[in-house]
Amino acid sequence: MSARPRVVLTDHPWPGVEVETKVLEAAGFDLVAGPEDTPTAAEVEALVGANDPLAIMTCWAQVSTRAVEMPRDLRVVGRMGVGLDNIAVPAVTARGAWVVNVPDYCVEEVSDHVVAMLLDAWRGITKFDLEVKRGRWQPATARLKRVANMTIGIIGYGRIGGATARKLARGFGCRVLVMSRRLLSEPGVDRELEKGVRVATVATIQRECDAIVLNAPLTEETRYLVNDAFLAACARKPLIVNVSRGAMIDNAALVRALNSGQISGAALDVVEGEPTPPREVVDRPDVIVTPHIAFSSDASLLELRQRISEDIVRVLRGEAPRHPCNDPRQGTGARTMR
Amino acid sequence: MSARPRVVLTDHPWPGVEVETKVLEAAGFDLVAGPEDTPTAAEVEALVGANDPLAIMTCWAQVSTRAVEMPRDLRVVGRMGVGLDNIAVPAVTARGAWVVNVPDYCVEEVSDHVVAMLLDAWRGITKFDLEVKRGRWQPATARLKRVANMTIGIIGYGRIGGATARKLARGFGCRVLVMSRRLLSEPGVDRELEKGVRVATVATIQRECDAIVLNAPLTEETRYLVNDAFLAACARKPLIVNVSRGAMIDNAALVRALNSGQISGAALDVVEGEPTPPREVVDRPDVIVTPHIAFSSDASLLELRQRISEDIVRVLRGEAPRHPCNDPRQGTGARTMR
Repeated sequence: MSARPRVVLTDHPWPGVEVETKVLEAAGFDLVAGPEDTPTAAEVEALVGANDPLAIMTCWAQVSTRAVEMPRDLRVVGRMGVGLDNIAVPAVTARGAWVVNVPDYCVEEVSDHVVAMLLDAWRGITKFDLEVKRGRWQPATARLKRVANMTIGIIGYGRIGGATARKLARGFGCRVLVMSRRLLSEPGVDRELEKGVRVATVATIQRECDAIVLNAPLTEETRYLVNDAFLAACARKPLIVNVSRGAMIDNAALVRALNSGQISGAALDVVEGEPTPPREVVDRPDVIVTPHIAFSSDASLLELRQRISEDIVRVLRGEAPRHPCNDPRQGTGARTMR
Repeated sequence: MSARPRVVLTDHPWPGVEVETKVLEAAGFDLVAGPEDTPTAAEVEALVGANDPLAIMTCWAQVSTRAVEMPRDLRVVGRMGVGLDNIAVPAVTARGAWVVNVPDYCVEEVSDHVVAMLLDAWRGITKFDLEVKRGRWQPATARLKRVANMTIGIIGYGRIGGATARKLARGFGCRVLVMSRRLLSEPGVDRELEKGVRVATVATIQRECDAIVLNAPLTEETRYLVNDAFLAACARKPLIVNVSRGAMIDNAALVRALNSGQISGAALDVVEGEPTPPREVVDRPDVIVTPHIAFSSDASLLELRQRISEDIVRVLRGEAPRHPCNDPRQGTGARTMR
């Protein structure tokens, strides 16, 4: 075994780790990779405990406080993605180590995925493909939509929300209503951000939209945002689209709203309980599900793996990271205490 | 039974005929409607023979020379749609009667449908929804595409082809190559029609495109356009999309190209053999099929039914039709000979 300093990759939901290995080895580090499927927090702790890494890279696996406290000299935890909800960020900061991510990654992919799911539902692609494969050819049963006539609400207006709004407004002439905490704290609800895209309150979105897209980060404030009360206020039987985190939606409330016809369907790339989501949510013809792949493309995945590896190397060389998510100077500096 | 003059509607792949009935009855005509599912040519002949109509309206049913020659005073045959390949147009002209259609109908719907099918395939929506419903949650197996990186070829550049090109170029930043007989007969292959949309030859489309969309009308020239030779010239394993007529594609050649990996998949709203398309074409995970519904939406269907009924009434009142497809003066005038 090599005595070179190590980087632990907790999980990699793609085959092989050549991209990461190449960047890290060239900089003098060994990569120790966990499995493709997401390991448990305890399995991550075991992997970290056994390898004493300078850096931890994670995609979906939980990096717990315990895992963060184990290495003798932890310098950086890298999220291979955008959201940080699977990393014990305060514990990393407390050790005086960096948390980094790739914030501007997969903007094209996730916004493509949202539009793909909306069009799929409105044009009946998945539903009728299954019908045809079951031997039925019944065009008369189609109840499809003209996309230009649709109003779409987007909750969470960062890079991905913005790209989604532009694709729908410029490409199809849709009316798009958008909201975020930042937008609503500025003056001028109802102002036009670009042709066809306006700022609106959640109440207006609930009242006027044919689809509501969840793009906000998961926080204590947004957890179960879509619950019974939220759904009861929806007036136009909207399609609910989630490409953020499963826990933005109360699954039981969603099922109740589907059963009662309060909403017309759901398109979910994330489901609370994944990778074994509740069957009563995913086994319905009015729910389209993809297994948390909205971020993915051959192009985005290469960028992601390359760029997070480079930012890890930057920190390990003593440089500032390109995409810091915390301020290690606020920590106690435990990382240098050994 | 009423003695008012009659209009026969051969088939209506939507429930009920209230829209058509209302327009025709107000003008003094009785509507005799066939079934929702497409009847055979012989069944249409029987219906026409039993009712001696002044006008025949058809959606998918064959209106044969025999059917056209039966009524004592046929004045117009109306296609509830765009294509005329199910109507014996020369026989109608020979009788001195009009053929009318609704040429600018469902442009939004079919172009929406094409983009929906492309995005569905590139983002894996139908494929992964089925995987999740079968109990698998395997993001690592995703091989998805960034839509902006795709080059799409469109064969047939009428209203629908134009709308499809604009949605892909403006909405997603795709590169779009388009061709039609008219475009290629004008000077300047490779000229830019609008940002991102260029005229190209079929050979260029075969060489450079990640998807090839068939939008041309079915004629003797375009029948089986996509055959073994066409597919062998495709360089980038394109997705083949057909929203025109099934017979644009040689089904056996398509299956061979899918099996050999020469193309990556197909998305078909039309299949030769529909409504009972060959199982070896539609029962594949790399083929997405919808049952000839690209034209459909709540908005377009109402427009279609209303507008064709109005054009039929216009002719029956002795006015010129709004959307003539033939020149009855070229006929022998048999319609007035009784």
